[in-house]
Amino acid sequence: PSTVHSVRKVFKIACIPGDGIGVDIAEAAVQVLRKLSERVGSFEFDFTTFDWSSRKYKELGYYIHPDGPETGMEELKKFDSIYFGAVGWPDVPDHISLWSLILPIRSSLSQYVNVRPTRILRGTSSPLSNCKPGDLDWIIVRENSEGEYAGHGGITHAHSSNTVATEVSVFTRVGIERIMRFAFKTAQSRPRKKLTMVTKSNAQRYGMVLWDKIYDEVKGDFADVETDKMLVDAMTVRMVLRPESLDTIVATNLHADILSDLAAALSGSIGIAPSSNLDPTRNNPSMFEPIHGSAPDIAGKGIANPVGAFWSAAEMVRWLGMENAADSLMTCLENVTDSGIKTKDLGGSSSTKEVTEALCTEIER
Amino acid sequence: PSTVHSVRKVFKIACIPGDGIGVDIAEAAVQVLRKLSERVGSFEFDFTTFDWSSRKYKELGYYIHPDGPETGMEELKKFDSIYFGAVGWPDVPDHISLWSLILPIRSSLSQYVNVRPTRILRGTSSPLSNCKPGDLDWIIVRENSEGEYAGHGGITHAHSSNTVATEVSVFTRVGIERIMRFAFKTAQSRPRKKLTMVTKSNAQRYGMVLWDKIYDEVKGDFADVETDKMLVDAMTVRMVLRPESLDTIVATNLHADILSDLAAALSGSIGIAPSSNLDPTRNNPSMFEPIHGSAPDIAGKGIANPVGAFWSAAEMVRWLGMENAADSLMTCLENVTDSGIKTKDLGGSSSTKEVTEALCTEIER
Ligand SMILES: CC(C)[C@H](C(=O)O)[C@@H](O)C(=O)O
Ligand SMILES: CC(C)[C@H](C(=O)O)[C@@H](O)C(=O)O
Repeated sequence: PSTVHSVRKVFKIACIPGDGIGVDIAEAAVQVLRKLSERVGSFEFDFTTFDWSSRKYKELGYYIHPDGPETGMEELKKFDSIYFGAVGWPDVPDHISLWSLILPIRSSLSQYVNVRPTRILRGTSSPLSNCKPGDLDWIIVRENSEGEYAGHGGITHAHSSNTVATEVSVFTRVGIERIMRFAFKTAQSRPRKKLTMVTKSNAQRYGMVLWDKIYDEVKGDFADVETDKMLVDAMTVRMVLRPESLDTIVATNLHADILSDLAAALSGSIGIAPSSNLDPTRNNPSMFEPIHGSAPDIAGKGIANPVGAFWSAAEMVRWLGMENAADSLMTCLENVTDSGIKTKDLGGSSSTKEVTEALCTEIER
Repeated sequence: PSTVHSVRKVFKIACIPGDGIGVDIAEAAVQVLRKLSERVGSFEFDFTTFDWSSRKYKELGYYIHPDGPETGMEELKKFDSIYFGAVGWPDVPDHISLWSLILPIRSSLSQYVNVRPTRILRGTSSPLSNCKPGDLDWIIVRENSEGEYAGHGGITHAHSSNTVATEVSVFTRVGIERIMRFAFKTAQSRPRKKLTMVTKSNAQRYGMVLWDKIYDEVKGDFADVETDKMLVDAMTVRMVLRPESLDTIVATNLHADILSDLAAALSGSIGIAPSSNLDPTRNNPSMFEPIHGSAPDIAGKGIANPVGAFWSAAEMVRWLGMENAADSLMTCLENVTDSGIKTKDLGGSSSTKEVTEALCTEIER
């Protein structure tokens, strides 16, 4: 009889289900993560749920507790990771909910990278007729801290026929260089070592031209990475018509937001797509969230696709250092999709619960 | 013997072939327009070609003649319409060529609307497997005078590690309201009377929220138009997965630029897509151009797809008031694509010349 006891590592996870189907899928993800840790045995998760939601906002006037020695944002810093569901509900204007919850987290915790992988999971298919599963396997690296989401701008003459409003995109050398290096490293770590850099520098002559310039500088440090440049409009054409020509992609906050939704659609459904909001310095916890949003129309019906939530959970497990467990989770997930247990958006007829239970059963084995 | 002579209307057309395949396809379009006018008989075109190109820029230092009592831009105003090929060549940075040629024309001539129809032409198909020809029939109305293309912005600390660059999108009530009304009228003129308005007002709180506001105001004047709103990222998903749910679309300069390229790809090729840069007041000539660009890689090879150029020519004929001739031209064009005479991007093997001649033969009948 062995006397060796394995030490289980405990990860503290802040769970913010948020609004709409965020609640359904966060619950499903927690269930799956618990099952995974039980099965693997070498780590466990200690979840704390934060009810930061539009409902609470209507009640209290804020999403994240703003006062006192311990603001909500300070609390988050004590966790190893954050798992996020979705935010947005019809009775709060979206620009208020987003700028009160998800965007302040991304920026306060210096999560300046947003990684968005897309590929065609086993048992699912692309709406593109000529696209075989292996043809579409991308990682979109999104700048997550500045650019079009800098929050600058304003309105003058709001109540006259002469109103002028501006949206100011702010780009910094520091901000561009760090995302560019991250993207090059990501490309380098992948078998094809290929990076496509996206801008709109033909029409936008300042920040976008700075992107071009820094890309040219950084490129020299990654001689083994094959590179090319695209304009964001032409990029959509290439994604549709030559998906196999792309691998790793880097783009601004807005451009990558648009391209990653398109990528998800081309891989079958926005319901499968994960995202990782990373602080690569690891000075702050990173945050993991499916990209589908709160989907008020199907909220509470039990039919939300939890695949994006599970994939996001796998990315969290990977970021916490458990590569093997993350890989197993993805294999189990694809065993489920492959067996036909899928929600309606993927052409199946299963409920959120059925997909979740099928995945737990897979993990169990 | 009849003594009635029909009076032929003469339209003065400024033709700016520009760069790359712009030259090939503008020549083809002129040939087709001449043939059309001969065949119809009630109008003719008087073309003046302007060699405003990147080659000339390298020689002279400008694209459009800037001096004297008659600047190039003033000359353009004397024409009934402008036919434009493409601009952009590797030896001139794109932001210089575009801001020296196409963008100044759009703004100096107050062409504040850019209309971009997309549908699946007979004999061509969508790369989307579930998309039947009738499912994708859209008109994208692009704001063409302000927003992300306002040209504002700058760079500070260019030569330090502290560089900051901005791109400033400028939106005005006047600018938004006129494009919104144009879009509503366009929707109203179509059988389905359906308008989708696109913004990113969840992340951008000033100009984008002003778009939302003016949309709400204008909507009241078009009670017979069915409307809905989308965020630009989610819009790409809808275009891919539910193309049949869309009809007329209105969006900002950048958003519509991106969405119209995507639309072209989803309808088979960027080579077929036309655009009309309109001054709806008719105080200035409007400009017609295919959206594909100068395509340096295939320039001069005789293989550029002229379909977008012909469709743009048809839209010019329509704008000049010859609806029937425009419709006939489109019918002839689709007879050609339907007969399999297509360039490589559409799955055929014909040259630019073969497609052009086939179209001339069709018109002749
Ligand atoms: C929720 C919202 C702020 C968001 C974004 O635009 O970043 C979403 O579309 C995303 O892609 O994460
Ligand atoms: C040529 C360029 C300025 C352009 C644009 O971005 O407007 C092109 O992409 C277009 O769509 O007309």
